[in-house]
Parts: sequence; C-alpha cells; structure tokens
Amino acid sequence: MPIYQAPLRDYQFILSELLNVYQQTDLRGFDELDADLTDAILQGVADFTTDIMLPLNASGDLEGCKLVDGKVITPSGFKQAYKQYVEDGWATLTCDPEFGGQGLPEVIGTFATEMKTATNMAFAMYPGLTHGAYSAIHVHGSDALKQKYLAKLVSGEWTGTMNLTESHAGTDLALLRTKAVPAGDELFAISGEKIFISSGDHDLAENIIHLVLARLPDAPEGVKGISLFAVPKFLVNADGSLGEANTLSATGLEHKMGIHGNSTCVMHFDGAIGELVGAAHQGLKAMFTMMNQARLGVGIQGLGVSDIAYQNALVYAKDRIQGRALSGVKQPEKAADSLLVHGDIRRMLLSQKSFNEGTRALMGQQALWLDQVERHADPEKAKQANALAALFTPIVKGFVTDQGFKACVDAQQVYGGHGYINEWGMEQYVRDIRIAMIYEGTNGVQALDLVGRKLLSDKGAALTVWSGMVKQLIQENASNEAMKPYIAGLMDAAGDLEKATGFIVQSASKNPDLIGAASMPYMQLFGITALAWMWTRVAATSLAALEAGTEEAEFYQAKLNTAKFFMSYWGSQTRSLRKQIESSSADIVDFAEADF
Amino acid sequence: MPIYQAPLRDYQFILSELLNVYQQTDLRGFDELDADLTDAILQGVADFTTDIMLPLNASGDLEGCKLVDGKVITPSGFKQAYKQYVEDGWATLTCDPEFGGQGLPEVIGTFATEMKTATNMAFAMYPGLTHGAYSAIHVHGSDALKQKYLAKLVSGEWTGTMNLTESHAGTDLALLRTKAVPAGDELFAISGEKIFISSGDHDLAENIIHLVLARLPDAPEGVKGISLFAVPKFLVNADGSLGEANTLSATGLEHKMGIHGNSTCVMHFDGAIGELVGAAHQGLKAMFTMMNQARLGVGIQGLGVSDIAYQNALVYAKDRIQGRALSGVKQPEKAADSLLVHGDIRRMLLSQKSFNEGTRALMGQQALWLDQVERHADPEKAKQANALAALFTPIVKGFVTDQGFKACVDAQQVYGGHGYINEWGMEQYVRDIRIAMIYEGTNGVQALDLVGRKLLSDKGAALTVWSGMVKQLIQENASNEAMKPYIAGLMDAAGDLEKATGFIVQSASKNPDLIGAASMPYMQLFGITALAWMWTRVAATSLAALEAGTEEAEFYQAKLNTAKFFMSYWGSQTRSLRKQIESSSADIVDFAEADF
Repeated sequence: MPIYQAPLRDYQFILSELLNVYQQTDLRGFDELDADLTDAILQGVADFTTDIMLPLNASGDLEGCKLVDGKVITPSGFKQAYKQYVEDGWATLTCDPEFGGQGLPEVIGTFATEMKTATNMAFAMYPGLTHGAYSAIHVHGSDALKQKYLAKLVSGEWTGTMNLTESHAGTDLALLRTKAVPAGDELFAISGEKIFISSGDHDLAENIIHLVLARLPDAPEGVKGISLFAVPKFLVNADGSLGEANTLSATGLEHKMGIHGNSTCVMHFDGAIGELVGAAHQGLKAMFTMMNQARLGVGIQGLGVSDIAYQNALVYAKDRIQGRALSGVKQPEKAADSLLVHGDIRRMLLSQKSFNEGTRALMGQQALWLDQVERHADPEKAKQANALAALFTPIVKGFVTDQGFKACVDAQQVYGGHGYINEWGMEQYVRDIRIAMIYEGTNGVQALDLVGRKLLSDKGAALTVWSGMVKQLIQENASNEAMKPYIAGLMDAAGDLEKATGFIVQSASKNPDLIGAASMPYMQLFGITALAWMWTRVAATSLAALEAGTEEAEFYQAKLNTAKFFMSYWGSQTRSLRKQIESSSADIVDFAEADF
Repeated sequence: MPIYQAPLRDYQFILSELLNVYQQTDLRGFDELDADLTDAILQGVADFTTDIMLPLNASGDLEGCKLVDGKVITPSGFKQAYKQYVEDGWATLTCDPEFGGQGLPEVIGTFATEMKTATNMAFAMYPGLTHGAYSAIHVHGSDALKQKYLAKLVSGEWTGTMNLTESHAGTDLALLRTKAVPAGDELFAISGEKIFISSGDHDLAENIIHLVLARLPDAPEGVKGISLFAVPKFLVNADGSLGEANTLSATGLEHKMGIHGNSTCVMHFDGAIGELVGAAHQGLKAMFTMMNQARLGVGIQGLGVSDIAYQNALVYAKDRIQGRALSGVKQPEKAADSLLVHGDIRRMLLSQKSFNEGTRALMGQQALWLDQVERHADPEKAKQANALAALFTPIVKGFVTDQGFKACVDAQQVYGGHGYINEWGMEQYVRDIRIAMIYEGTNGVQALDLVGRKLLSDKGAALTVWSGMVKQLIQENASNEAMKPYIAGLMDAAGDLEKATGFIVQSASKNPDLIGAASMPYMQLFGITALAWMWTRVAATSLAALEAGTEEAEFYQAKLNTAKFFMSYWGSQTRSLRKQIESSSADIVDFAEADF
C-alpha cells in the first residue's frame, strides 16, 4: 500500500516563515492563530487522513460505488470513515462559528484539503462538494435558508452537491434546459436531468442538499436567465426534522476512468421542491462568487495527488535495484545500484519535487489572498487581494492540475511495469487526477479565463500589481550575491511572460481568436513564472534562516538546491512557450476547417 | 462507438510519393510491389480491422481476460475474430514465403500494424507477440526448430510470447534467476517465474510457443550467462501433432490500467521442456537482434492509438456546440458554435494531427531502413541502413509513445467531462497507450540507449550520415522560395540538436552521469528534429505535386498547412529542450540523495 508522510514541516515553513501568517494582525481572526494551534490541527488532519482515509483509497477504487434500487452504496469502509470524520469535527474547520464552524482561515483549510486529497481523493470529494454548497448558501442564501441548512452542512451530518451540467451543456451554461416552476410559498418545482453530479447520491449522510441551476418560466435567454435552487433529497420540516422524500433521484452512475469511490450521478428532478438561493436569474453569479475558492480546491487535488505519487516513487527509486550508474558502481554490496543513481529517474523525481513544493507555497499564497478578501481590515487591501486571487485562480486550477497530472505520470514511470498494474497504486493516481484537468471548468476554459478575462480586465490592474511585487522582490535581492541564481531565473521567466503578455494585448485588438490560440501556452508560462516567484521567496527565506544559524541547516539547504533545480529545469521552458505563442497562434487561427 | 477511417490516402502518399517504394529496385522483392497490390492489401486490413477488431475494443476492455482453472479466457468475440484473422491470412503478411508467409516488406507490415493497433491494441498484441517469436526462431533457431514451429507461427494457428521479466528484474536482465537444466537430446528443463507476460495464456490458439530467457548451470554471471529457449505450451510430436501439456502454466493475471483484452500473465515454469534458440549464453543477443523491429512495433502503437483518438476528437469538436468564437458568432443558425471555433481546441487537434502525420511518415522511413537491412543488394547500403535504423529506434519507440500518450490525453480533453467516462471510449485510449511508454524498454531506457549507445557508438557515424541527409535536403531546397518556412524550421531544430549533441559528447568524457540526466530532453529534441525533417520532405513533395497540377490540390495544400503549423508549434520547443539539457543536467547529477 502506498505510504504517506504529511508534509507538516513544509506547512510550518510556509505558514510561519514564508507567509508570516502569525503576524497578519490586520486580518480578522488571525490574532487567534499561533503555531501551536495550527500544528495541532494539521497534525490531527494528518493522523486522520493517514490512518483512516489512506487505507480506503485502493479498495474504494476497486470496489467503486453501486446503484442499487435507486440508491447509491459507497465502497466498504467509507460510511464508517465519514461518520468518524463528522464526529471528529474535521468538516467544520473553516466554517462560520455562527453555524458551528471553527472559523479557521483558508490558509489552514487549504493544507487540510491537500492531505485529504492526497490520501483519498474520491472520499475527500464528499466533504469538498458539501463545502461548496455551504459557501453558496452562506453567501447568497436567505436567513431562513441559512437556518435550515447551514448547521447540518457545517457539521457534515448533511452533505451537498452542485448540479450544473446537462448532457448537451457543460462549459456553456447558456444552453441549460432544467426548469423551475413557482409552487407557492416561495417554493419551486424543479424538473430536468443533470449529469456528472459528484456525490449526487450516497449512503454517508441522512440528507443531501442539491444546489441546482435551472430556468424560471419568465427567464431571459442565455446565462442571464439561470437561477440557483437548494433542493434537498428529503424535505426538511419546520422543526428541522426530515420529512418526506423529494421527487428526485439518481438514475445512473457514470463509469469513469477514476475516482471510483466518488458517486458521479445522473440526477433526475421530477418537480422536486426547492428554494431560491440568491435572486432570481442571478444563479450564475451565485455559483461564481465562490469560484476562486472552488477552483483552488481542484488545484489542491493536483498538488495532493502529485505529492503522494512523488513520495512513493521516491521510496521505490531508493529501494529498487536495477542496473549500474553510468559513472561506475555506486552500491558494490548489492547486485545492482538503486534506481536513484540514474539521471533520468532523478530528473523525473526532481521535476515532481520542485513542482510540488513550489506549488504548495503558491497555494498558501493564494489561500492567504482569499483570507485577505474576507478578513482584511482595509477594504482597499481586500479589493487588491481579490483581484490577485482572481488573476491566479486559473493558474492554481489549470496550470497546477495540468502539471500535477504530468507529475503523476512521471511517478508512475519510475515504477516501470509495476507502475502499470494496480497493485502498487500508481496507476490509480494517474486515473484519479485526470478529472481535475476537466471539472470545475476545463483547463482550456481556465486558460481562456486568464487571457480573456483576468489579464485584460480593469486594464490589467491585477497583473500590474503582481508584476510590481515581482520587481520589488528582484530589487530587494539584487545586491545579494547568494540570491543571484534565483533572481536570474525569475528575471528570465518574468521577461518571457512580459513579452508574451504584450503579444496577447496586441492580439486582442487585432483578432480575438488569436488570444484563444495562445491561451494555453500562456497559462503554462504564467504558471512557471509564478512558481519561480515563489521559489525565489523560498530561497530568500532559506538563506536568511541559514545566515541566522538555524539548527535545521539540511532543511533549508535542500530548499535552496531544489530552488536552483527549479530555475535551471522548469525555467528553461519559458523561452519556448513564449516562442510558441508568438509564432504559432496565427497558424492555429488560420487553419481551414476542411484541412483538419 | 468510436469511428475509424483507415488513413489509406496517407499510406499511398508515403509509399508512392514520399519514399518511392515502387522504385526501390535494388531491394530484393520490391520489384513485385506495385500500388495496386499495396492498395488492395492495405484496404483488406482496413476492412478487417474496422469491421471486426474495432467493435471488440470497448467490450474487450470492459470484460477483460479471466483466469479460470489455470486457463485464460479472452473477452467475448476475440476467439471468433482471431479465427477469421488466421483464415484471412493477415498473420502471414511479412513472413518468409518458405514457411507460408507472403514475404511483404516491413514498410507494408508497419502500416498494417498501425491499423490493427488503432482499432484494438489489446487484440493486436496477440499476433504482435507471435511475430516476435517467429522472428527470433527465424533468425536464430536451428533448422529443426524452424521446421517444428515456423509454419504454425506464420499462419497464426499457434501464437508466441516473450518471457523476459522477473519480479525483481525488469530492465536489468543480469539479475535473472530462471534456470535451464540439460535434460538430454538437446532438451532442457526450465524452472522459474516470469511476470508481465503479454498473451502468456489464452484461448485463441491451440498452442503457444514461449520464448524464455534462463540461465544454464555453467552460465557466467550477468547478461553474458543468459540463454534463450523455445518452450511450448503443448509438446510437439515428431509428426507435428500436439503431445502432452508441458509443465508450465499461467498462475496469475495482472490487474492493469489498460489493455484489459490482452492477457498479461504470471508464468510459472516447473521443469518445462524447451530447446535452445541460438547458442548457449547468447540469449540476450538473440532477443536483441529483433529489437529494432519490436520497438518500431511499440512505436506504431503510439501512432495508431493517437490517430484514432484524434479522428474521434475531431468529429466531436465539429459536432459539439458550446460557446461562441471570441471573434464573434460563427454559426448563427445554432444555439452555440462548434468546439472547433475555439483556439485551444484547434491547438490540441493540430498538435495531434501534425504529430500523427509526421510520425506516420517517419515510421515509413524507419520500416524502409529495416527493409534495406534485410534486402539491399549492396551490403554497404544495408549496413548504413542498419546504423540509421538503430539510431532511430529509440526515437520511434520512446519519443513517439511519449508524445502519442500526450496526444491521447489532449484528445480526451477535447471531450471535456465526456472524455472521462468510458462511454465515449477516449479514456480507454489513454489507459491503453500508457503501457507503450513502459514495455519493450521504458522510455528512459530508450533515451539512455540513444545517448549512451547509438549517439556515441562508432564515433557517431550514424548521426553523421543522417546529419548529412538533413543538410542535403536543406541545400536542395535553399533556393526554393516556397520551401523557406519549412527549411527555416528544420534548420532551427537541427541547430539546437547539433548544440545539444555537442553537450552530450563533452559530458561523456567529463561525467557520464550527465548524459543520463540529459537523455530524455535530448530524445525529445531529436524526435522533434526528426519530424521536422519528415515534414520538410512532405512539404517538398507536396509543392512538387501542386506545381505539377495535381487534381488533389486540397490534399497537398492541407499537408503544407500542417507542415507550417508543425514548424511554428512543435518547432518552438527545441530551444528550451536544448537549454534544459545545458543548464539542468549538472543540477540533476549533483542533487544530494538526502535532499530528495
């Protein structure tokens, strides 16, 4: 069975040293945080995920979910594990204390999510979707709706779903057909079919609150006519007890490449009773206000699964003997050297490691921005944080899941033939994480969001702010000889990004299709530059710790060496990405349909 | 169900116009080839694969193989389909006429294999492995062995396997433990356990001839003590009839990520009777003489599966409506535009298309070199072809399966959520083709073979010959204005490859571990340059056809447009690959084990 070592030391480093979260006193609630509390919480999550969730990952994949008599049965052990998850209070971490939550910031919740996803992505999706439903009602629901649903969603006793997709309408929600008809008393009767509904039905909780996008009778066409409804599996009585079953059901389970332990349902609504969440025709807005958070959650999946895949590939590479180093025998006492002597094995592992650690730091930064949006005492700072988080959302979702998938493929490759059979667990990681590139907006949609919306909106204000932060970092370290390799790498990447941005801006006025063609390499270029920025900050922090005479010199030296590798290996890619954007975009747009 | 259009027009183009196979009169047997014969054969394979093999691909994946009472049962329909495959004579195409084969060249056989692999990779592996066993016995077996086995292997009535891997020994065959003990009459008793044995047992044929690597009692240690044995499932009587069952069996079936329709067995040999193939202790040599051919076969899988994935993704992109073009509505009569208007969808499809068509041309070239090795009237030319085929073997296996896998992932991405469920067939392509990056030598081993063996052997003679061919092509077209974009792209790539080669050569003398670290980006750089070379030749051929006033102007114009895209998109990558080699190799080698 795969092992998992929760990266607790890395969390401490990011929280305490890199992001200084214990000094963020102008963020509401941060004054209650300290390292002891944070360590205890993250240690608790580490124990729960490693002891309870990890052992159910392979068996959950093998057994999968079953649809029996219209009800979904989750894999053996899931029900008991979920019960404990609720009892231990892990569902409540970042929720509003008014409804029973612990009010912890995203920057803690994000790392808790990483551990959950790493150990059992399919299982982690049940509380993950619940949190989305919680947020939608928390932000947009009426007081009555909040009173009705939030406490149970916070505790995890009830779970939630997001019902967006229909078979003909995925990305393009304007095409939605599900209908909502007023049924008196501010109730609505919802009818239609939704597909790809994660956690759509299951046996983990006594009720499921479905958030459903549908059209009211008087709705304008397109996305401006979509409303959001809360539609419970069982109707809820005035006293909070469960009433009769609503007229909705899971009519099918999708047969998927991976995440077999999560129930991906076809949901049929047959006049099911629901209530509006937010205003009529404003459903898309209600869904999208938590988009930054939801997409960070998917990005975290890319990191979590990539990290556990790396951890196991590293163990395998150290244990497995095969061949000899090109430079001569390294382990004469053995019949062969370990895989780790081989350059290409090292290349793959270092690529994963430097991606994972850099991404973890970036995820912390993104979560902190989201916390600033909600908690900053200065509204201007909150607004700026919101713009930065919006800018980086396609990066943490699209770039991170693309590269996280590749990292899992590399980790599988380290195992050779053993990576292809399910016994070692590596092929499951590749199958599971593949979905993260697709759901919550395909990565192509993320790239388009980056170039079409985030980059060009508000005259590129967010990018200007972030570029200023990059330049300031470069300036601050310009005279520090020890920082030279990192600064040089960051400047290289940022230079390519700046030129590519120029191309995008020019293209937007010439032919907007060009920016679509350029969007994916641009997102990858942006992502690498963002990680180069994080690694430069990591290097600066690590050098400072070493200069201060830390007792953990190995930890910081390893960070510096990994940062150096990131710059020389990942940093090499930015030039070609820029070149690709500049030279191939027109060819992509001009290619005649008949020539495909 | 996925569709398949056999690329027959592309085969004609490559055979007749690009490679001029009908004018290769100094190749034994090529004088009997003509376009009518070739077209008829390839059309026959196209019909068989599309009508018989394709419908069994998804069901074979879903049902998989079963091990019941020590016997493997293949998925429903496989047995009947295989019977027809044998009866129609498709097994015999490239085999020796002396044993019932049709004596067709590899350049035809390779394209037949592409269609088989595209339509049903798991099924195609049964005859694929048989052909490997046929070749080993044909080249190295005694006359008695040939008489005993070849006719039945050629017809396909019996099938074959390759038994190399043991659980502790994959790449490093020096660690093998399976034993062979003389048992009189030039017979040997083989004992040991082999894993990952494709087609190890099944119900398609009445006998299976296992080629097994094992050690004789007096064998020297390491790879110089390995011998190859032919070990039948059923012993064969002097009159050719089947005798008693040999003491061997499939004791397990691997549970794999994909190729579920092919039986991947754990094989147990318990004093099973076998005969030497080739000389004692020369088993590895016997296995490796057909390595160029076997690895081309795996590369063809990368192409075949990538092509059917592309074909279906293109159909989907044209049919599926979702969103509107950035430059404005393109299909006002519909509720949304087709996916094909979106730049990133086009980018993915063009990346696949230009890879597939360029690779198909390269596969034809490689097959023609293999034909020259066997058939060229001039031994010097045969020798040179052998060196070129050996140089390109890691490219056609390693580069092509790496990129073919990525192409399948892109094709899956075009489908959005529908790509993740098995209903549409795309996720199966990703799972199936993943093995091609691992078996027949992992792609890391291919990269090492390229830099460690092929590049530096014989003072780089093969590379020098090929570089000369590239330079000649550039020179020949230097004054042709219409060829400029292609020539510029080829020169760019070749320049990066030359500099990277210089780095490798220098590194070899400094620290051999460096070339291991540089090997994978070098293989990718080499592969892109090889495709740029093929696309330049395709462009020259297409321009000539257009100048000659062809009636199929659309076909040739599409080739030119695709060539242009290849240069601007794929060609952009070579600079960074070179940079990566130069700047990160030392970091990879120097990274301390403790810092991982």
